[in-house]
Amino acid sequence: MKKEKPVIETHSKQEAPPGSYLNPDWQVFVRRESPPSYAILADKVLQGDRVALSQAITLVESSLPKHAEQAEQLIDHCLPFSGNALRIGITGAPGSGKSTFIEALGQHLIALGHQVAVLAIDPSSKVSKGSILGDKTRMQELATSPHAFIRPSPAGQSLGGVARTTREAIILCEAAGFDVILVETVGVGQSEFAAYEMVDLFLLLLIPGAGDELQGIKRGIVEMADLLLVNKADGDNRLRAQLAQKAYQNAVHLLPPKENGCTPEVHCCSALQQEGIREAWERLQFMANQLKASGYFQARRSTQSRYWMHEAISEQLHQLFYSFPGMEQHLKHMEEEVVQGKINPFHAAQRLLSLFLQENGHFRR
Amino acid sequence: MKKEKPVIETHSKQEAPPGSYLNPDWQVFVRRESPPSYAILADKVLQGDRVALSQAITLVESSLPKHAEQAEQLIDHCLPFSGNALRIGITGAPGSGKSTFIEALGQHLIALGHQVAVLAIDPSSKVSKGSILGDKTRMQELATSPHAFIRPSPAGQSLGGVARTTREAIILCEAAGFDVILVETVGVGQSEFAAYEMVDLFLLLLIPGAGDELQGIKRGIVEMADLLLVNKADGDNRLRAQLAQKAYQNAVHLLPPKENGCTPEVHCCSALQQEGIREAWERLQFMANQLKASGYFQARRSTQSRYWMHEAISEQLHQLFYSFPGMEQHLKHMEEEVVQGKINPFHAAQRLLSLFLQENGHFRR
Repeated sequence: MKKEKPVIETHSKQEAPPGSYLNPDWQVFVRRESPPSYAILADKVLQGDRVALSQAITLVESSLPKHAEQAEQLIDHCLPFSGNALRIGITGAPGSGKSTFIEALGQHLIALGHQVAVLAIDPSSKVSKGSILGDKTRMQELATSPHAFIRPSPAGQSLGGVARTTREAIILCEAAGFDVILVETVGVGQSEFAAYEMVDLFLLLLIPGAGDELQGIKRGIVEMADLLLVNKADGDNRLRAQLAQKAYQNAVHLLPPKENGCTPEVHCCSALQQEGIREAWERLQFMANQLKASGYFQARRSTQSRYWMHEAISEQLHQLFYSFPGMEQHLKHMEEEVVQGKINPFHAAQRLLSLFLQENGHFRR
Repeated sequence: MKKEKPVIETHSKQEAPPGSYLNPDWQVFVRRESPPSYAILADKVLQGDRVALSQAITLVESSLPKHAEQAEQLIDHCLPFSGNALRIGITGAPGSGKSTFIEALGQHLIALGHQVAVLAIDPSSKVSKGSILGDKTRMQELATSPHAFIRPSPAGQSLGGVARTTREAIILCEAAGFDVILVETVGVGQSEFAAYEMVDLFLLLLIPGAGDELQGIKRGIVEMADLLLVNKADGDNRLRAQLAQKAYQNAVHLLPPKENGCTPEVHCCSALQQEGIREAWERLQFMANQLKASGYFQARRSTQSRYWMHEAISEQLHQLFYSFPGMEQHLKHMEEEVVQGKINPFHAAQRLLSLFLQENGHFRR
């Protein structure tokens, strides 16, 4: 599968030697007759080179058209070596202690001999330029461990964009040998639904309190969770955490059963005191083994792959339609008419579609 | 707004008189120089003529291209006279007594002087040819009342199709003077999410039991409900219903708050004994008044109109893409490649899109 390594010549001066070009990603000159640069990068990723892994993710995050083809080849090269990690989604309201929890879980996993990659989906980082995971000081031990890889959410992308690059980052991390992938989201938007469709198990962090723990969590997220953890169960909070655990356990029983057949358990933990982390991991592993034994695990992954293909088709069709010259104004006008009850939404849609098809020339229907 | 009535001549023989044509919907000959037939139908609908209302809904449900334009004009004609009803979604697992409940609620509403229309969204009736509301014997009193109008789910349509025609049926029923619209769904599929986006309040029917009441209900539906009703709270079931009510009340408090700010209450009722029906209606009215006072009611309707416009755009773009000649085979091939891990879902989507655009001739991007 792997191709022969190309000839690389490193130069300190800026002029490229005849027949070679400067590769912008890692500042070396590559002979033009050599295999394309993605292959070098892919080989390094497959060898577990973390700098190359970073560069590879930067390449798939790039919005430059010239990088698109390289990124595609890179991913296709790494794809056969991916898929062997356990992928876990982690969400929770702001203040539920996600970073501290990931730090604690990550250290526990490394102690068990795992290689842990931490990724994030947070399109709000468009504004805050990486609001979650940006602050690596909260994951100090993990950030400096040779067995962990932390990557903040890319900035300046739509949810669709972040979802694509995060899924591709999972492929690259798995190809680089990471066997546990943690995908963090902030718990307040649509990101959780995207994360849910790219992980094997989904974990919801809660904090002790009396009923309003979920003020910050978007509806629908509780029902996605495979494991609920009441964090900060330490000191004075311990009793309140146990009460919250009981209340959630009762509530979860009243929710419809999950498609994967697992009954979501509610546990207490203290990421700060490193308590309950081992038990949480054991529960996740138990569920993963159960799902693997029943065949659901692999079936779900296939479903997810198909889901992302259709999702990408959908997104690109939308992109085509909504970015069409003049469409913005047409849309604005039609939205007004629709809201004022002057036209039925379905007919408004039909007229916009007709406009789009007409303007696109002889679109055969 | 209303146009002058056209000249109508009714003939028993099959030949159309010169300059007129046979209108297939209500078997009369209409002079060609007369206004288009939709106007007659629309006028009759606006006068509250129930036969015309039935014909009008049949027209919007028709898949014949020649009916499409008439249906569009009909809807646009009725649109300014719609919007004055309270729209209520009703769902519940099979066996929760939806028909009996609607019969009881409908009779209560009629006694209060309301005009009640009952519609259904059930794409599964593709197979069963109208599994819900088809059996009007369960709503015997309502079915024969001059103040109620019951319409089963149209057969042989996709969810998107049923959603469109149900929304248009709401417009027609409102234009015909019905001031409470009940939209029934079966609680097991995607129909509830479509119903949720076309009603003002959403009601979930439950049955007493110990924790597994929701086996038949799809996840996510509990969180959409504005009011949960534990039905069949009669005879030996009364105590169990009260226990279920309490358990749900606790569980609902643990769910994130609803966007509309209403806290979902859980009540008991017995549709069979006509108990708790008045209280349920009073709660619905209380919530509706609250939402109207806060401005949320109208804002949500505007959001829903925009939602359906974008949803229709989405559906028609998909229709265009997925029904393209040869696309089925391309898709099947790509899905296999994606599931086997040979190609990244995003690149598979890109390739299918390229194919689609190429085949569509010179689609300018």
